[in-house]
Amino acid sequence: MSGAKRVPLPEPRVEVRFSGSGGQGIVLAGLIFAEAAGVYDRREVAMVQSYGPEARGGASKVEVIISDDPIDYPLCTNVDLLLALTQEAADTYSHDLKPNAWVVADLEWVTHPPTSDTIALPFTKVARDTLEKVMVANIVALGAVSHLTGLVTHRALEKALLARAPGGTSQLNRRALNLGVKIARDYLRKKQARAVKEIQVEDM
Amino acid sequence: MSGAKRVPLPEPRVEVRFSGSGGQGIVLAGLIFAEAAGVYDRREVAMVQSYGPEARGGASKVEVIISDDPIDYPLCTNVDLLLALTQEAADTYSHDLKPNAWVVADLEWVTHPPTSDTIALPFTKVARDTLEKVMVANIVALGAVSHLTGLVTHRALEKALLARAPGGTSQLNRRALNLGVKIARDYLRKKQARAVKEIQVEDM
Repeated sequence: MSGAKRVPLPEPRVEVRFSGSGGQGIVLAGLIFAEAAGVYDRREVAMVQSYGPEARGGASKVEVIISDDPIDYPLCTNVDLLLALTQEAADTYSHDLKPNAWVVADLEWVTHPPTSDTIALPFTKVARDTLEKVMVANIVALGAVSHLTGLVTHRALEKALLARAPGGTSQLNRRALNLGVKIARDYLRKKQARAVKEIQVEDM
Repeated sequence: MSGAKRVPLPEPRVEVRFSGSGGQGIVLAGLIFAEAAGVYDRREVAMVQSYGPEARGGASKVEVIISDDPIDYPLCTNVDLLLALTQEAADTYSHDLKPNAWVVADLEWVTHPPTSDTIALPFTKVARDTLEKVMVANIVALGAVSHLTGLVTHRALEKALLARAPGGTSQLNRRALNLGVKIARDYLRKKQARAVKEIQVEDM
């Protein structure tokens, strides 16, 4: 169905970790992402979440492996994409990143990014100020990381989101997702503009 | 908090597999069960679900490991509890049961139980006929397996359910859960009565 429109995966096996604190909706974001990739984009997907003292103490995470081949080991060993919505999550879960991993963090809550090329975006701010519902910061982030990485199609993501969104919140969730995409698009444009400028400076 | 009221686990590591077909809400049931055990009963819990050709083709599953110690391997190798809501799920996912595993199946959909001591209960029938919402058969089953096995407390299960139930469905979901418990209780009473009768016959 959506197979034809899928972007090829950048690696045969892509490891994704979403992290934050309990109550930020990390598990739901992971579930929607996994179902977008697995059910709607029709890839092989494994998702693992755990609950324990660590998770209850503060930082919580969910891991999603995406592949076009069967997945024999469902845990992350070299993370391709880390989303961190809190400082504690960023500190706790950034020890096993790949050299060129995408690291995406909440601009407000992650004051000390785990890597020098962390992409810090205003998920919480947009959810609170623009949507007036801070609880959908997870969905804003979901829209942004998906657009930045191209790991799932927007169409699949929207379907998965609407299938899991609590009744009556479809409109809000769709807006949150689209705002996330917009934030990511703006970031990419600015980055490109900066790159062009740097090239022009070099040319002078 | 609810630690004091928890029943001891029957094994240091308990492996639970919920299975059925897409659309029966297996993932949601597994998530609620995992959160009941991990967040509210405060045990160590790992949950794995996967999406792939197998899952999309028909049978789908979610696995939950419960322990009081850290879980290093999150996959099932010897299943303590299998819930099967369809025949295909029962056939596909009953190859690695422990000798005395609980096997719980939907009475209507699993016509050939995978073991001779499978507990077949009318989850779908109750959801359809009593609750008039076949979609909550998963929650009826959740209430039943939890009562049968004592792996999670009812209090934790109810909290986890209400935290994940879509808005406006709390009442329906709570009824479904309680009906599941009732079905399990009736089953256990009948089983006990049968055992007493057998003892009496032996005594004569």
